[in-house]
Amino acid sequence: MSQLLLKELDIASKEVNAEIESLFSDESEPRVIYDASKHLIQAGGKRLRPFLTLNACDLVGGKREVALQIAASIELIHNFTLIHDDIMDGDATRRGAPTVHVVWGIPMAITAGDMLFAKAYESALKTQATPSRLLKIIAVITKATVSVCEGQASDMLFEKRRNVSEKEYLDMIYKKTAALLEAASKAGALIGGGKAMQVKRLGNVARYAGLAFQIVDDILGLTADEKTLGKPVGSDIREGKSTILMIHALAHANSNQRQQILSTLNNREASTDQIAKVIHTIKSLRSIEYANKKAETFTNKAKSQLTIFPSSQSKNILIDLCDYIMSRNY
Amino acid sequence: MSQLLLKELDIASKEVNAEIESLFSDESEPRVIYDASKHLIQAGGKRLRPFLTLNACDLVGGKREVALQIAASIELIHNFTLIHDDIMDGDATRRGAPTVHVVWGIPMAITAGDMLFAKAYESALKTQATPSRLLKIIAVITKATVSVCEGQASDMLFEKRRNVSEKEYLDMIYKKTAALLEAASKAGALIGGGKAMQVKRLGNVARYAGLAFQIVDDILGLTADEKTLGKPVGSDIREGKSTILMIHALAHANSNQRQQILSTLNNREASTDQIAKVIHTIKSLRSIEYANKKAETFTNKAKSQLTIFPSSQSKNILIDLCDYIMSRNY
Repeated sequence: MSQLLLKELDIASKEVNAEIESLFSDESEPRVIYDASKHLIQAGGKRLRPFLTLNACDLVGGKREVALQIAASIELIHNFTLIHDDIMDGDATRRGAPTVHVVWGIPMAITAGDMLFAKAYESALKTQATPSRLLKIIAVITKATVSVCEGQASDMLFEKRRNVSEKEYLDMIYKKTAALLEAASKAGALIGGGKAMQVKRLGNVARYAGLAFQIVDDILGLTADEKTLGKPVGSDIREGKSTILMIHALAHANSNQRQQILSTLNNREASTDQIAKVIHTIKSLRSIEYANKKAETFTNKAKSQLTIFPSSQSKNILIDLCDYIMSRNY
Repeated sequence: MSQLLLKELDIASKEVNAEIESLFSDESEPRVIYDASKHLIQAGGKRLRPFLTLNACDLVGGKREVALQIAASIELIHNFTLIHDDIMDGDATRRGAPTVHVVWGIPMAITAGDMLFAKAYESALKTQATPSRLLKIIAVITKATVSVCEGQASDMLFEKRRNVSEKEYLDMIYKKTAALLEAASKAGALIGGGKAMQVKRLGNVARYAGLAFQIVDDILGLTADEKTLGKPVGSDIREGKSTILMIHALAHANSNQRQQILSTLNNREASTDQIAKVIHTIKSLRSIEYANKKAETFTNKAKSQLTIFPSSQSKNILIDLCDYIMSRNY
């Protein structure tokens, strides 16, 4: 990751953390629901979405202070979905900390997620903007949240299906991951006073980058080592995820290979050896090269959206972000 | 329930059901998440909140068509909280139908609740109103939703505490139940173009009526029969709920009575006989009379808020609603 990008992510983190902190600093009761709601946020995170919001606002010539409540709003939406996802997936740790339901139990964790959802709107409503512009931004955030719910549902359904098409997969990762990134970027451009074309282009940058990011994530889930990954290699296989690699592999496998993959896929008890064999098969079918190429295509699409903008530091950082997606190894 | 009130609830139901249906009528995928999201709404419900919104709009001289999306929004918020509550409480039926998590499993039910939450904002955003007025209404809905989350958390915490004060109980039922009723009424008055004092008063009517309603609910939980109640008599005792009856009884019990109550309270395995004995003790301590008196006080407070409004059918229906709360036996 470039020094410039690192620095900007750090600045965005600090700004948005302070904004979120201010939303939770009152004396509201009961404290436990606020503690549970803040837990995951305080555990860390890259704050990629707030960064996209603030940077897009910058890029169209807006004052980033005005975008802070919107940036916080989108980070709160993201964290609410993570709290609920962790319950659904039964995950015990995230960001190096125990998940909310592990600490407070499932009922309180469901409520903590709901609370962050409501607080996201509370944050957005604090924004200093003309009412009509603010309504437009709230509509962007709302639409993305509907998408996230659709994407989450599809992701769960796809675990039980072995005939998911690449188109369905791309639609699912758009909804589950890229839609909120797109909204973060669009909302930042809107609050910054960007023109319709700028808003659209900046939304597209985040959307294509988000798709590339998710594909690279799926690749790393099979190729990175457990330590850098923070979870067992091949979890996606055990959980039966229809990643683009798996879709490609199943489409190109001979009947022996297909049988080997299907006997391991969605088998939570699969041994390390079984997983290693399936990964070997996937590699031999060149599915990783295929996925990498897809990710690269999306990254290039993302960068090509930026041609209408004159050179600036905010633009350079977005290009750095796109390059980083293809270079990361964790 | 008066014929007039019954008729108006029925009209509001039909109007808001059609509005909600239109929100879900598109071809969005995956269908299963939309089926799961609509399930509880389609199972029925009184639509009390939409009625309050539409009636408040009427009462201040607004056109009720303009209030429909807001009425739908608040009903969606209500249903999202019910879907999540049923997961938390492990309840298997509601409105005579299996609960969402029973049909689709907990992960899909969590997502279905989240979807209704997002759709509630989508509905509100469709409202034809000046942007500044609409933002004010969205703020009212958002604030109430934060309250509902706080109230839900307090309700869970109170199940484990035996020293909940009456003040804490009233604060909890305000947040969990009355706040959204208050918001429904305020939002209706706002969209109808009501003056600040009218908005406040109509909010108060719903708030006080909501408090009375919840207290009567707690009474009926001990005094109604299982058939009309739709759940076992004394569930609140088994679940360890700190109702106003229980708080009053514990405050006035002698040490034997206290011991008897505490040995049954929050004991999910308590026998029908044990429950009957505790109910007998609560009755002998005149806790039911006490709670009834409280409910009556709130009902009178609710009605007294209406003095500033000239006589009208909408006003009469609200008075009927208050009277109904004290007369209902299910």
